[in-house]
Amino acid sequence: MSESAVSTLIDRLHDEAAQDRPAAETPDVGIVMGSDSDLETMLSGGRRRGAYDAFVDELGFAEQTSFENSPAERFTFETYVTSAHRTPDLMAAYAETAEDRGIEVIIAGAGGKSADLPNMTASIAYPLPVIGVPVQEKSVDSVIGMPTGAPLVAVDAGKSFNAALSAAQILARQHDAVRERLVAYHDDLREAVGGVSRDLHDLGTEAFAAARDE
Amino acid sequence: MSESAVSTLIDRLHDEAAQDRPAAETPDVGIVMGSDSDLETMLSGGRRRGAYDAFVDELGFAEQTSFENSPAERFTFETYVTSAHRTPDLMAAYAETAEDRGIEVIIAGAGGKSADLPNMTASIAYPLPVIGVPVQEKSVDSVIGMPTGAPLVAVDAGKSFNAALSAAQILARQHDAVRERLVAYHDDLREAVGGVSRDLHDLGTEAFAAARDE
Amino acid sequence: MSESAVSTLIDRLHDEAAQDRPAAETPDVGIVMGSDSDLETMLSGGRRRGAYDAFVDELGFAEQTSFENSPAERFTFETYVTSAHRTPDLMAAYAETAEDRGIEVIIAGAGGKSADLPNMTASIAYPLPVIGVPVQEKSVDSVIGMPTGAPLVAVDAGKSFNAALSAAQILARQHDAVRERLVAYHDDLREAVGGVSRDLHDLGTEAFAAARDE
Amino acid sequence: MSESAVSTLIDRLHDEAAQDRPAAETPDVGIVMGSDSDLETMLSGGRRRGAYDAFVDELGFAEQTSFENSPAERFTFETYVTSAHRTPDLMAAYAETAEDRGIEVIIAGAGGKSADLPNMTASIAYPLPVIGVPVQEKSVDSVIGMPTGAPLVAVDAGKSFNAALSAAQILARQHDAVRERLVAYHDDLREAVGGVSRDLHDLGTEAFAAARDE
Amino acid sequence: MSESAVSTLIDRLHDEAAQDRPAAETPDVGIVMGSDSDLETMLSGGRRRGAYDAFVDELGFAEQTSFENSPAERFTFETYVTSAHRTPDLMAAYAETAEDRGIEVIIAGAGGKSADLPNMTASIAYPLPVIGVPVQEKSVDSVIGMPTGAPLVAVDAGKSFNAALSAAQILARQHDAVRERLVAYHDDLREAVGGVSRDLHDLGTEAFAAARDE
Amino acid sequence: MSESAVSTLIDRLHDEAAQDRPAAETPDVGIVMGSDSDLETMLSGGRRRGAYDAFVDELGFAEQTSFENSPAERFTFETYVTSAHRTPDLMAAYAETAEDRGIEVIIAGAGGKSADLPNMTASIAYPLPVIGVPVQEKSVDSVIGMPTGAPLVAVDAGKSFNAALSAAQILARQHDAVRERLVAYHDDLREAVGGVSRDLHDLGTEAFAAARDE
Amino acid sequence: MSESAVSTLIDRLHDEAAQDRPAAETPDVGIVMGSDSDLETMLSGGRRRGAYDAFVDELGFAEQTSFENSPAERFTFETYVTSAHRTPDLMAAYAETAEDRGIEVIIAGAGGKSADLPNMTASIAYPLPVIGVPVQEKSVDSVIGMPTGAPLVAVDAGKSFNAALSAAQILARQHDAVRERLVAYHDDLREAVGGVSRDLHDLGTEAFAAARDE
Amino acid sequence: MSESAVSTLIDRLHDEAAQDRPAAETPDVGIVMGSDSDLETMLSGGRRRGAYDAFVDELGFAEQTSFENSPAERFTFETYVTSAHRTPDLMAAYAETAEDRGIEVIIAGAGGKSADLPNMTASIAYPLPVIGVPVQEKSVDSVIGMPTGAPLVAVDAGKSFNAALSAAQILARQHDAVRERLVAYHDDLREAVGGVSRDLHDLGTEAFAAARDE
Repeated sequence: MSESAVSTLIDRLHDEAAQDRPAAETPDVGIVMGSDSDLETMLSGGRRRGAYDAFVDELGFAEQTSFENSPAERFTFETYVTSAHRTPDLMAAYAETAEDRGIEVIIAGAGGKSADLPNMTASIAYPLPVIGVPVQEKSVDSVIGMPTGAPLVAVDAGKSFNAALSAAQILARQHDAVRERLVAYHDDLREAVGGVSRDLHDLGTEAFAAARDE
Repeated sequence: MSESAVSTLIDRLHDEAAQDRPAAETPDVGIVMGSDSDLETMLSGGRRRGAYDAFVDELGFAEQTSFENSPAERFTFETYVTSAHRTPDLMAAYAETAEDRGIEVIIAGAGGKSADLPNMTASIAYPLPVIGVPVQEKSVDSVIGMPTGAPLVAVDAGKSFNAALSAAQILARQHDAVRERLVAYHDDLREAVGGVSRDLHDLGTEAFAAARDE
Repeated sequence: MSESAVSTLIDRLHDEAAQDRPAAETPDVGIVMGSDSDLETMLSGGRRRGAYDAFVDELGFAEQTSFENSPAERFTFETYVTSAHRTPDLMAAYAETAEDRGIEVIIAGAGGKSADLPNMTASIAYPLPVIGVPVQEKSVDSVIGMPTGAPLVAVDAGKSFNAALSAAQILARQHDAVRERLVAYHDDLREAVGGVSRDLHDLGTEAFAAARDE
Repeated sequence: MSESAVSTLIDRLHDEAAQDRPAAETPDVGIVMGSDSDLETMLSGGRRRGAYDAFVDELGFAEQTSFENSPAERFTFETYVTSAHRTPDLMAAYAETAEDRGIEVIIAGAGGKSADLPNMTASIAYPLPVIGVPVQEKSVDSVIGMPTGAPLVAVDAGKSFNAALSAAQILARQHDAVRERLVAYHDDLREAVGGVSRDLHDLGTEAFAAARDE
Repeated sequence: MSESAVSTLIDRLHDEAAQDRPAAETPDVGIVMGSDSDLETMLSGGRRRGAYDAFVDELGFAEQTSFENSPAERFTFETYVTSAHRTPDLMAAYAETAEDRGIEVIIAGAGGKSADLPNMTASIAYPLPVIGVPVQEKSVDSVIGMPTGAPLVAVDAGKSFNAALSAAQILARQHDAVRERLVAYHDDLREAVGGVSRDLHDLGTEAFAAARDE
Repeated sequence: MSESAVSTLIDRLHDEAAQDRPAAETPDVGIVMGSDSDLETMLSGGRRRGAYDAFVDELGFAEQTSFENSPAERFTFETYVTSAHRTPDLMAAYAETAEDRGIEVIIAGAGGKSADLPNMTASIAYPLPVIGVPVQEKSVDSVIGMPTGAPLVAVDAGKSFNAALSAAQILARQHDAVRERLVAYHDDLREAVGGVSRDLHDLGTEAFAAARDE
Repeated sequence: MSESAVSTLIDRLHDEAAQDRPAAETPDVGIVMGSDSDLETMLSGGRRRGAYDAFVDELGFAEQTSFENSPAERFTFETYVTSAHRTPDLMAAYAETAEDRGIEVIIAGAGGKSADLPNMTASIAYPLPVIGVPVQEKSVDSVIGMPTGAPLVAVDAGKSFNAALSAAQILARQHDAVRERLVAYHDDLREAVGGVSRDLHDLGTEAFAAARDE
Repeated sequence: MSESAVSTLIDRLHDEAAQDRPAAETPDVGIVMGSDSDLETMLSGGRRRGAYDAFVDELGFAEQTSFENSPAERFTFETYVTSAHRTPDLMAAYAETAEDRGIEVIIAGAGGKSADLPNMTASIAYPLPVIGVPVQEKSVDSVIGMPTGAPLVAVDAGKSFNAALSAAQILARQHDAVRERLVAYHDDLREAVGGVSRDLHDLGTEAFAAARDE
């Protein structure tokens, strides 16, 4: 009777893959991570903003928590923990079913020196594009070092925010609405840099620092 | 009168961007590199197979050498040298015009410890997806380390072959023909591994090594 | 019809696992590697002696090339290529069936920075002990860095010879014959060091070097 | 009169080795470390769970504190500090007597860049299997880098918990009871991952994080 | 209407470059950085003293905050944020106009692993000398690794204080007043070392430490 | 009577410093290195072009081999070996006398992990600007890592060619003739990149590679 | 009038060197460091015990604070700050006069990546033995990497305590009294390890940890 | 009967230690290494000159190959292979008997990442000074990283030549003859640098390189 949670999930994923839902109702992006201790880095709330912040706050995506009931927003993502070393069967089931479940691109993050989850997910989900996120600096080598013939693209350590932008860039090749959101986000970012640059120069270092620290 | 070569190229790129050609006639993938000394790594002929081999030999793409006359093949790529440190203006012109010239994804490679070309190309070509290829192991950090808000995805050092597969994975989200070629390539790869595994086991190490070395 | 080689191997492994053969007729050690390019490092013939040399030359093991027909020698090993990134299903099938196929300990080697094969094999073959061999120096981190709860033990880069000795040390807890072979090998090794030390000292550096280079 | 503590311990170890106790009454696993400052990493109480936690909490082993009076539990371990650089004679005496004192496998941990204790213990205790634990990240190279002919297997820095699981995997080849405990521990671990994965997905990131932080 | 801040700055820089002001009224040193989060490292207030401290406190320079109204001090510097990845156009405009705006030497700092700002600024501002400041240790490789033919000189990570001294050394080749200030600063520094050395020796370690900690 | 060579050189340097020659007759740049084994890297003839090539071939400088008889060319450099560890007195004499001997900027190169020559030369020659050249990759840290208050600027490992360009950039602040040569060199470099880029694109990879290899 | 402190010290060192004092009245060990910020690491009070603790607490040496008035203790050391980069003349004067001032061995420590002080001191004080102490981990390469022909011996980063023991080992070749103190210190150290080892084993992990934490 | 070579050597060492020979007849320096594959690095004949070259060619020492018959030269060294991992008992016997056999200082070299021989020899031979030679770059950490209380001094990777000079510096504290040889060697070295420096400068780079390559 043990492992009911893992088995139930595996069965559910295969059931969902067998359904024939329209693309607009399935999650566009699948986010998987090796452990819920990766949550802050992969999604939101750590020192740096994460994929959740990028999707929800900047790009207007919604998180889909039920395969059956999709949110009102057109573009969505879903999140799972699929540990490569503790639940390799769940990881494999997720990767095998991803394309049939409507996923267009996977963001896969893992920490530690043996960050196998992005690599194995990319190998099994092929030919779906997988963006690997090394959760720690020491995970970079393991994530990026795929052999010839086994494609995976990686972002820098801890930068799931950028992985979300990259996933949106892929979706934007087909969906102008996503492209527009990416451009709008970028314009805001540039405007902010411009303002800071002008203030620093025109106020001078001391006054700028004083104003900022108020 | 100096720099006519660079100026001419820059003008040509802007001219091409001003044209309104159908997607089927423009290059789908743009490959840029920092120097023609990167040619073996980025394209073909080095120790390891490169992007040219992947596109031409495995995926049925053709190289487009004239913007006006596209090859018969539906999917194409083009190649330029756009040095970030010697010709920053050419690099910028390429990145600025890429989307308007019909490019769907850029593969950008550079060597050395200051491998700025992929990063700057991604920053300027945004929101086009850019796949960075560190030409040397020591280029990995510089390529992958983009700050939050500036997306770029990277492959491992020297693996432009995988960058081509990843670019094709992105195109395959819209084009089933590309997806089919990716799957066919992968099936062949797996069949080869299966054959080697069986032979090694069934012949035994000595006989297998002897047969291989014949 | 594609992938017949991989599928056939997977089926064969499951068939063998379903048989109920006595321990003396099944392979005691399973050696798997990510590619046949790892052959020199994992088995024999490289700059350094490998697992094959240790088992066959020093410890009296034989290589078992047919599950049905075991060699005359009591202690045996078998070898397969099970690429994590190209044939994850074959890798999983090997690891899942290993214990039922009579394997007592697995030696798993892989190269590159994403050396996932030993890790995934250990995760799936659990609770069978798995000794990871990083085929290259840059594979060490990926092989050794398993998270808490996912056991794998590692040897140094390229030292499949020592992995064979370690596997034999595990078998020796149950089999005095293996223990005796380990001791005999070690005695020879020590005798050689003693002889060299005495000769170097008593002849002096110049005469010793001259004698050695003859 | 100095060094009475070290000399007394050395004599005691040799006395115990001369006794002929049944396997069930002697410690199965010997844990040695270079300093009592390694205690948190090697055993229990640090940021990460250690070998003590694995043996006592997860696998039902008991710590044997007297060679004469073994605990009621069938499987036991013992712990000593045997500094390679301060008490090389004590380290040697422990390694020389380990097999005769009934030990089946040694877990040896040391910190610093010159982590010689696991290496020397493996060299002297041969052919007993020794699992090296680098107490710090900077100890990994020194622990894992044994030359050809001198077997030692290593776990990742600080992961004495995994070393205990690996030691149990070795004992499990002979003792089904240990195997069962390993499997039961693993089932619980998987069940936990499955539950977290389902909750994260079905609640969504925000609700999951809120529930977790309560 | 978006990006007004960036566009306005770019226009302003080009306007200033078109003016023909005497050298004594333009900034002598231009300081640019990738983000205002680099402010503490590049200018002042961090763990270590920065370029602002060197220029203002030690060398008698003033910060020029308006191109039109230069300070009374003969030697001045100005500061801007010109992000390579968020505002590559602003970065390029700054570098292109620097020499015409009267700048004699640029100090350019950036953090992260892709510290492209100093490199690109040096490439575009050529033949103006550019001193690169890696804001973090991990930025050193990216800043220093310029290819043959693309000059940039670098200081150690975080040491914008030394970059200011080096900039002053360049100015001192033409301006004796700057040379005198450099010498005066150095004499004070040496006098302080001499005093500490004598006190430590003559008081002895304990008394010196006690006096210092009072 | 020993050390006459070193003593003679030290005396000569002090004699020359005591003379009062016009700037046009003294060397503008002093190049020192730790050993004549650094000659290929520091000057000319190695895998990569060096400072000699930059000065003589690209910038029209001449090497001055006699302090009394300056070459016809206006801009000159001189070269010495001044080992920090074998002849610290010669190194100090060179640095002490450099400014009085008319040197405007020093290029100092050293190899190994203890590359002290650039650092010590910068400390003693202060306030003269010193450009450090790490002769090997492993020399970078030692050269660049100067403490606060001790300015030195560095180029990348082995890139004495760039050090020469940087030295010329410093001289160019006072001498328009040097600035013009820097610009002319740069224009040629850009023209070459432009030509290669156009040929690669317009010929296509195969034809370009074939043409290049002819 | 500037630099009087440095000049005065240099003169004093040369004066002392000109005197002809008996060995028993001069310092036996000279300790120099690059900055008084190195005081905790080089002498006493940091996380780890330093050279001062070793000499004064363990080996019975006294600190000599006046060259004229030596302490009652037979064996003594003195301490100076002699910055390589700020006061190269003071550093040179110390090294030049050390042997004539009666010093038998120098302990020289410096931090940062350009830790030149130990190297230069060894080069100038030759043939006096110099023990280099890298004050930080990043100083190790710079301290240890001396070229062939320039001897210096190094201890690990921050371990000035061990440098003191090594200096005493050198003195002990001539002075049995120092040898006896070294042995006594070592016996105490071993006794402590023996006691801890016995307590850990005999009390068991939990009771030992509880007793220790009381 | 196995291990007669090792046992015989151990017995011989203890016999020699029991003799009471005058210092002038025993070896002054003991050189031990982990394997005869270290011979080129430790002694002579590799890319770089070794300890043998320093002792025999530069310092007038002789190699003593028989404990009973010492060479005519006053200062001598002896050489043994004492593998830490293959013959820990021989290594211990050498270290235990070294002081009684008249050795004043030990030079101990080992390669690999687990270079335990210098460390263990220093721990056992205490209070005799031991100079560790990392035979490979990757051996540096393991050799230098001794814990507080366990003194060992190290030279750079592969520099046994410098270890010999350092050993001679220790002997020179008691023996003026050794000090004189060290000074004479150094004078020659300096004279050579002076000659090269003058020739390079006065001939100019091209003529110097041509003359050197003739």
